[in-house]
Amino acid sequence: MTRFDAIGVGIASWDLVGVTATSPVLGQKQPLAGYTEMGGGPVATALATMARFGAQVALVSAVGDDHYGMAIKAELTRFGVDTSFVVTGRGSSHIAFVLAEPGSDRRTVWWYNEPTVFADLSFPAELAGQTRALLIDSHLPAALSAARQVRAAGGRIMIDAERVNPTVLELLPLCDDIVVSANFARAVTGLSDIVMATQALAERYRTLVVVTAGEAGSWACHNGELIHTPAFPTTPVDTTGCGDVFHGALLFALLRNDPLPAALRFASAAAALKTRGLGGRTALPSLAEVEALVRTTTAQ
Amino acid sequence: MTRFDAIGVGIASWDLVGVTATSPVLGQKQPLAGYTEMGGGPVATALATMARFGAQVALVSAVGDDHYGMAIKAELTRFGVDTSFVVTGRGSSHIAFVLAEPGSDRRTVWWYNEPTVFADLSFPAELAGQTRALLIDSHLPAALSAARQVRAAGGRIMIDAERVNPTVLELLPLCDDIVVSANFARAVTGLSDIVMATQALAERYRTLVVVTAGEAGSWACHNGELIHTPAFPTTPVDTTGCGDVFHGALLFALLRNDPLPAALRFASAAAALKTRGLGGRTALPSLAEVEALVRTTTAQ
Repeated sequence: MTRFDAIGVGIASWDLVGVTATSPVLGQKQPLAGYTEMGGGPVATALATMARFGAQVALVSAVGDDHYGMAIKAELTRFGVDTSFVVTGRGSSHIAFVLAEPGSDRRTVWWYNEPTVFADLSFPAELAGQTRALLIDSHLPAALSAARQVRAAGGRIMIDAERVNPTVLELLPLCDDIVVSANFARAVTGLSDIVMATQALAERYRTLVVVTAGEAGSWACHNGELIHTPAFPTTPVDTTGCGDVFHGALLFALLRNDPLPAALRFASAAAALKTRGLGGRTALPSLAEVEALVRTTTAQ
Repeated sequence: MTRFDAIGVGIASWDLVGVTATSPVLGQKQPLAGYTEMGGGPVATALATMARFGAQVALVSAVGDDHYGMAIKAELTRFGVDTSFVVTGRGSSHIAFVLAEPGSDRRTVWWYNEPTVFADLSFPAELAGQTRALLIDSHLPAALSAARQVRAAGGRIMIDAERVNPTVLELLPLCDDIVVSANFARAVTGLSDIVMATQALAERYRTLVVVTAGEAGSWACHNGELIHTPAFPTTPVDTTGCGDVFHGALLFALLRNDPLPAALRFASAAAALKTRGLGGRTALPSLAEVEALVRTTTAQ
């Protein structure tokens, strides 16, 4: 019996989310129609999703010694994420200005973090054998040693890769579940067709590859089999964090041994329900809500 | 002997100031090279400037019942501004995302305030006779009753008008000092030439008109006399709040009865010194610093 279902290593952010009242223009003074703030970061939001479903999860990350750092930790704790391994570094926490444009899928993000905050972050060796799975993004160097240690201890590794860089290329062969956006799949394979990029990645790394493409749904490739999972229809308020929720829900379903097509539908339903609210975590669904949506649609 | 040198009625903001690392693009995820936050708002920053010079000043405004509201009041208090008349409304404080682009004069601002916060704001009648001057902007309806009451009690009224709207057009005839940006002067007169716009405004309202134009300096018109005051040369880090500091310094100098050309040079020097730091208040100069700069340049 391991202590955690999943441990995440990744950026924990505080997101300042403005909803534009008019089409944004650079160089002008313009009103926002709405504003909210909340925690963010791909791995952190995925863990919050899993915790909301009842999983035991912990985050390995760093925050700054400021108001935002306290808010980031307090909110994760509220969702049920263990933050004992979130260290407090010197300087500003990671923050992100997010501009959401109603009626448009376009989002603009400016992010800032002070490198001193993450300078001393390392993966605590004693955790490697205490978790069934590790969830990582491509932002923190500590993810690489975490992946090596958890893999050696027999844990499952899922990556949410965003940018092609040397660390990511070292991480990918260590992963069991490569779950990435269409943009990343295209960039790392050089193939513009999503299906071809998905198959090429699965061929290259000989593991489960899932490529998400928003409204177009997702493509998965495993043992040569290709699965397309359509997105659930929604009228999105905001798509911020949809990919993060998809990751958390997919890992949750895989860890309870759902068959792959069911796990993919489950993750897709969770991501669709998230779009009801502004920012990454306003509308994190409950397990019952996700399962109800999956059932309804399967019954049609 | 009045209790205050100046009372201000205007928005008190919390400014979240990001410095872009690359030329900003809408629809992308992009890093900031720097980040800071501090209080802002035209009248509030002008009052902070005056308080730093040693004047007795108070702000009439409203903040929300959130972290930002507390930060706004604490910072104004630290500068020496009396915040006894800053009420706390229900909802979010006024905030502004400011994007500063190094090496460019372009700034982008998205602002938000919840109308409920300012809904109950009125000018306390007992203050009308307790101040030598009133400083107002064009954002709050309470400015109009404040201007009428302070004018009736014999106080001096200075306006920093930004947008042409019905309230501003009612306010302008009540003012002793109309100190506005070139953009406002052009918009309200329909004249593109700054000198002509300045003279037209002075003609229309038969009072002191000062039009500021950044690096180009300012144009003042009083009793038919036109004065051009060049800007002091600077290598600006950030021009946020320069106009606000100019207003505060000009009112300070006029209240101590500096001759108009000297008051304008004093205000221009204060605004130039402000540009040394990021945001509106990082580099608010001391009285000694402003007077030293005025002396140095006069001596040349």
